[in-house]
Order: sequence, then structure tokens, then C-alpha cells
Amino acid sequence: MANEPGFDLKAYLGEKRAIVDRALRDNLPRSSGPASELNQAMEYSLFAGGKRLRPILCMAGGAAVEGDEETVLPVACALEFIHTYSLMHDDLPAMDDDDLRRGKPTSHKVFGEAMAVLAGDGLLTEAFFLMTSPKIAGRIPPRALIRVTRMIARAAGPAGMVAGQAADIRSEGQQIDLDVLEYIHAHKTGALITASVASGAVIGLGEASQIQALADYGKKIGAAFQISDDILDVEGDSHAMGKRTGADERKGKATYPSLLGLARAKEIQSGLIEEAVTALSGFGKAAEPLRHLARYIIERKK
Amino acid sequence: MANEPGFDLKAYLGEKRAIVDRALRDNLPRSSGPASELNQAMEYSLFAGGKRLRPILCMAGGAAVEGDEETVLPVACALEFIHTYSLMHDDLPAMDDDDLRRGKPTSHKVFGEAMAVLAGDGLLTEAFFLMTSPKIAGRIPPRALIRVTRMIARAAGPAGMVAGQAADIRSEGQQIDLDVLEYIHAHKTGALITASVASGAVIGLGEASQIQALADYGKKIGAAFQISDDILDVEGDSHAMGKRTGADERKGKATYPSLLGLARAKEIQSGLIEEAVTALSGFGKAAEPLRHLARYIIERKK
Repeated sequence: MANEPGFDLKAYLGEKRAIVDRALRDNLPRSSGPASELNQAMEYSLFAGGKRLRPILCMAGGAAVEGDEETVLPVACALEFIHTYSLMHDDLPAMDDDDLRRGKPTSHKVFGEAMAVLAGDGLLTEAFFLMTSPKIAGRIPPRALIRVTRMIARAAGPAGMVAGQAADIRSEGQQIDLDVLEYIHAHKTGALITASVASGAVIGLGEASQIQALADYGKKIGAAFQISDDILDVEGDSHAMGKRTGADERKGKATYPSLLGLARAKEIQSGLIEEAVTALSGFGKAAEPLRHLARYIIERKK
Repeated sequence: MANEPGFDLKAYLGEKRAIVDRALRDNLPRSSGPASELNQAMEYSLFAGGKRLRPILCMAGGAAVEGDEETVLPVACALEFIHTYSLMHDDLPAMDDDDLRRGKPTSHKVFGEAMAVLAGDGLLTEAFFLMTSPKIAGRIPPRALIRVTRMIARAAGPAGMVAGQAADIRSEGQQIDLDVLEYIHAHKTGALITASVASGAVIGLGEASQIQALADYGKKIGAAFQISDDILDVEGDSHAMGKRTGADERKGKATYPSLLGLARAKEIQSGLIEEAVTALSGFGKAAEPLRHLARYIIERKK
């Protein structure tokens, strides 16, 4: 369960990010002629400096069950499409009304609101085009691909991420309790992170017990990830994060630190990471990246 | 090729609409607790009086190849989810800024802009959850289901419907030529209509040549459908349509009548319908609903 000495997480992340970036570029949706601005808008947000956490988790989930990375890669990219679309729509004036994201003007500031909505819609839809690609369909039993498509649709849709954002929007400026905060985070962030790890394991043709263990791991790190976001908004370096910190407090947004205090929030976060690593106890060296990724969630600066 | 005497299109449409409405209700996405308003918004737009043209075309496409209607039905519903989402986003203030749709206040007028964006996102994502349902996956070869999922994602995404809307938005207030108008319509409306017919045929396990013929049919009626919309905006009864007519002219929007004149637009429309019916020449009685549906497109009042 202990981290293997010598594992270089920074090098791992750099290597995987480069693979994801190349694959994203290869799989960029291309609209023709009169709709070409749509491409620019999709490309702009896809390459606006994302950490590629979800694709990397998907690949690491596949690697944990010794799946073929090439086969997992289109699904990993599809997850980044979905994540990017969700940020574009969250940033809209009618939603969180954010002008900056990762230090760059948000999509609607550059392309206008209509194009930001449409480019988000385009990325979400394209995700399902990409994940049903013959590149995957020809390589694994088609039922596994259907399962993954359904798993990701569930995690991203009205029983998952979209529900989390809807609850978040409706809770703004309201007093909410820990139950609602947990609902928001489990849906808004947790569901897609869990699906990222689990979908990699399904595409990698893991056994049922492995997929379950990896989904448990995903659930724990998903929860910890959101607590990190909350903590970073209090303690983070706005330069590293590319946006102003303290936004949650200014907006009167309930967060783990605001509801429980910073110390207790950190305690919960550490507990979740330990539980995540424990969920991997049945795995050997192949899950080493996932163990390090869990800790990275606490240690990240942005 | 002639219409069979005695086919009652009105009864057919009524019967199929009732089946679709029941299935839509059975398959309504349900978000829990703090996100329950999302459900209301999705339900409101799904049941705001749609004609259910795409689901009915999907079912008729399935019937043409003598497929099982029960198996086609979830895909038919998924197509209505996608169509409804596209209307919700099109109506947004940043897009077409419409307050009324089918005589009722649009989603953002009732639920606010944020919820209208999210409910649209939710319906789009749920469509892919629904179409990968075990209700279908257990009944047809999984490869056929993957093919349909990919076909619909392509038709709805940045190479299809979303591109059409992007081109439409960017053409507003501009002089555009017939090429661009055709691009807009082929993508914005035609692609999903074509996919509706073709996906029914794939789920119905039609032969390749049948699927191709039905896709050709879909392409023709898709083009004719948009010309009808343009003509209805000039000649239609605003009461029957539930919105003010003449909107295209007021907005300076290029349409078939504005570019070619009303008479020529009607001529093209009739030609397309004849070609659509011709595409069905290899089919017998099973394609009778599709033949009548093609003519309905010209004759509809809303």
C-alpha cells in the first residue's frame, strides 16, 4: 500500500498529459465552412491549460487492470471534452459569470455567449461520437463499450454532473447544510471523476471486483478533490491558479472550510485519500500511478 | 409508389404520439433532492406540445424494415430529448431570444437562463443514457447499438446540428447565399431528421441497402421540412403555430422564400418530397407511413 520509491509523479503527469494533448488534437471536432468559428471556440477551451486529470485517471484506471492504453485513449479524450464543456457552461453569465479561467478569458468573453453555449453543446455531443469510435469498438467486446457509454452519460447527466450544477446554482446565496454540500460535490465533480477511473477499467477489460474497487477509489478521490478546490480557494496562490482566490467567500458560497472549518476539512480530505488508497489494496504495481494521483489531489497547487 | 388508399395519417400520428408520450414519461430523467427543479424544467419542455416528428420518423424507419417497435422506442425518445434540448438552447436570450415556443413561455422565461441551459444539457446527455439502455442492448447485436449511438452523436454534434445553429447565428443580419442557407438547414434540421429515420432502420436490423435508402429519404424530407418552416413563417397561421409569423422577415433572416421567391421555394419542396417517396420504391406496404409522413411535411399547419 505504501508508495513505491522512485515513482516520479511529475514525469508521469507530463508524459500522460502529452499523450492526451496529442490525442485531443487528433480528435478535435471539425465543423466546416460557415461554422468554422465553432471549431475555434472548442479548440480554445480544450487547450486553455487543463490539467487533464480525468483523462489521466481514465488511463491510470485502464493501466491498473493492465488494459491497452491506445484503446482507452479515445474515452479519456471524451471525458476531457465533457469536462471542458461543463466548465464553458458553468462560466456563462447566467451561471457563475466568470471572466477568467486558468488565467485566460473564458469562452463567452472571447467568442460571445451564443458560441460558448454551442461550443459546449458540441463538445458534449462529440464526446459520445468519439467514445463510440471504431478505434475502440473494434478492439473490445462491444458490450463493454456500451456499458462505458452509459456509465459516462449517467455520470455527466441529470443524475450526475448536471444535477450537481443545478443544485449549486440554486444554493447560491442560501444557507445550506453539509448534506446539500455533499450532494452538490458528489454530483458536480465526484460522478465524472468516478466514471473516469471506472471507465478506464471497463475499457481495459478489468474484472468486476476490480472495476468496483476502482469506482470506490474514484468516489473517494472525487470527494477529496472538491475539498481541495475549496481549500485552494482559501489558501491558494491566485497566480498559480490563474484566477482570483477567495471567490467562494465573496459569493457567500458554502464550502467545506466555511461549514466545518479549515482544520476539519483537511482532516476529512486526508481520511478520504487514505480510504482511496485502501480501495486499491488488491492491486499491485499497476495501480501505483493511481496511489500517487490520490496524494497529488491534496498536494496540488491549482 | 402511390399512397395506399385508406391510410389514415391523422390516426397514425395520434396513435404514435400517444406511444411516444407514454414512453417519454416513463423515461423522464429524475434528479433527486436539491436538483429537483431540473426535472421540472426538462419535463416542461419535453411536454410543451411537440409534434414528436423525429420519434415518429424513427419508429416509421424501424417499421419499414419490419423491426420491433418496442426496441426502437427508447432511441425514438432519445431523439426527442435531443430535439427538445436544441430548442431550449436556441431560444436562449444569447441565441434567438424567443419568449414563446408553441404558444408557451420558453424555458428560460419560466425557469431562468441558468436552468434552461442546464436542463438542455441534461436532456442531451440523458439521450445517450437512454439509447444505451439494456432495453435495447439486450435485444439487438450490440454493434448495431454502437452504430446508432455514433450516428446520432454525429448528426447532433459539431458536424451536424450544432454546426447548423452556429452557422445560423453567425449569418444573422448578413447577406447569405443559397449555399450557406443550404448548409445551415442540412446541418441544423436535416442531419437529425435523417438520423431519426436511419437509426430506426439500424435498430430494426434493416439491410445495408434499406438503411441507405431510408437515409436518402430522410435527407430529402429534412430539406423539405425546413423549406416548410420558412414558408409557414410567411404564410402560416400564427394561432396554429403558437408564435408570431413573419419573424424571419423582421429579423432579416435569409430563407428559401426570401432568396428564391415563394413559388420557387414550393417547387423545390415538392420536388424533394417526390424524391423522398422515390427513395422508398424498394419498400412495400411497410413504408406506407413514411410515404404519408413525407407529404404531411408539406401539408402541416405548424
